[in-house]
Amino acid sequence: MPINPEAKIEITAFRWVPDGAHGLVKDLRVRWALEEAGLDYRVRLIGLERPPGYSEEQAFNQVPCFRDETVQIFESGAILQYIGEKAEALLPRDPQGKYRAIQWIYAAVSSVEPFVQFRALLNVVFADQEWAEPAKPTFDHFARLRLQQLSDRLGEKQWLEGDRFTIGDLMMVTVLRIADRSKQLADFPKLAAYVKRGESRPAFQRALGDQLAVFAANQPQPEGAAA
Amino acid sequence: MPINPEAKIEITAFRWVPDGAHGLVKDLRVRWALEEAGLDYRVRLIGLERPPGYSEEQAFNQVPCFRDETVQIFESGAILQYIGEKAEALLPRDPQGKYRAIQWIYAAVSSVEPFVQFRALLNVVFADQEWAEPAKPTFDHFARLRLQQLSDRLGEKQWLEGDRFTIGDLMMVTVLRIADRSKQLADFPKLAAYVKRGESRPAFQRALGDQLAVFAANQPQPEGAAA
Repeated sequence: MPINPEAKIEITAFRWVPDGAHGLVKDLRVRWALEEAGLDYRVRLIGLERPPGYSEEQAFNQVPCFRDETVQIFESGAILQYIGEKAEALLPRDPQGKYRAIQWIYAAVSSVEPFVQFRALLNVVFADQEWAEPAKPTFDHFARLRLQQLSDRLGEKQWLEGDRFTIGDLMMVTVLRIADRSKQLADFPKLAAYVKRGESRPAFQRALGDQLAVFAANQPQPEGAAA
Repeated sequence: MPINPEAKIEITAFRWVPDGAHGLVKDLRVRWALEEAGLDYRVRLIGLERPPGYSEEQAFNQVPCFRDETVQIFESGAILQYIGEKAEALLPRDPQGKYRAIQWIYAAVSSVEPFVQFRALLNVVFADQEWAEPAKPTFDHFARLRLQQLSDRLGEKQWLEGDRFTIGDLMMVTVLRIADRSKQLADFPKLAAYVKRGESRPAFQRALGDQLAVFAANQPQPEGAAA
């Protein structure tokens, strides 16, 4: 198991989040990449209220932050690239293969995630707002357009560039899991199958299990439980 | 002038877009980076209707695509990184400096752009939708939160990591120009000044001039003008 309290790589993660965010918090991306790369890491758990000074590490008060003996960075895309530089299995070394993988990381977080994320929020965080219901057709339209374009590009291939899994697929699968969770993949069977292929990788299963184990261990006590 | 019809680097750009998008279309980011790097490039102009098969080059039917003798890629973040690898002036070579610059590219396109872009769209593309006006306070809240966090992080520094301009600043300035265009920077004077610093660079001015010159040269004729 790559989790090792003595490891040189440290990431931050939330001690606990509400059920709806289980398996979606972004330390999962980095845990998965570290598992694929076989790199040991330790986890520094923080509360949702964030510790004092945390925004000096992560400007937007999110998780994960990443540090080792060489760098201290945030943004899951940048962290995935850094891990990829250490693991050819995740990031091809030829320039075309390398930059295609990087292209797909950016496509995931910039061309797909914002659309599926906002659509998902209409069902959850924004659900009690009067404008949420009438806004759904517009957000549906944009999210479905991007999902259709991605499905067309994936076609019958196993991964986005063919038979080889890269860090671009890793990021894209985590983004599509947001869409899947909010039922946006129902009409996109190729994408749903692609997500399943990613989720079936042993490294993903270990990463997900490790994230969920932390939440289970730190479940808030029901009020009055101490009495 | 780096525009050179014989150059090995080719980017795609739109022949013409409506006035509201002038200076915001994403080939500007790549033109600016190429100007900073002093790399010659040629431009393949396409229409808004897109040429047949264009989605095989750019999965989401956007501009720019980038190609040279080595790679063929899209996503402006990936392209900027590729250019940065050729130009130390844009991307430091030490690991911490390099990955901080990459971190800021991701922060720009993933943690800032979606929020300011959706807020901007409420005034333009979504303006005639009944839900647009009541949705503004929510989108204002999220966009302003990210802008405040970014402003706090920038502080009194010239660029995001201090005195040295990197490709991370280049991307962030282009993203903040979307916010600036839709009056979202009025309460963030540090960010407004940061955008001005970026826009005052000679390479930016050349890139912007070259984008606008294409639109001016391909202005649609008013109906009946041929008569």
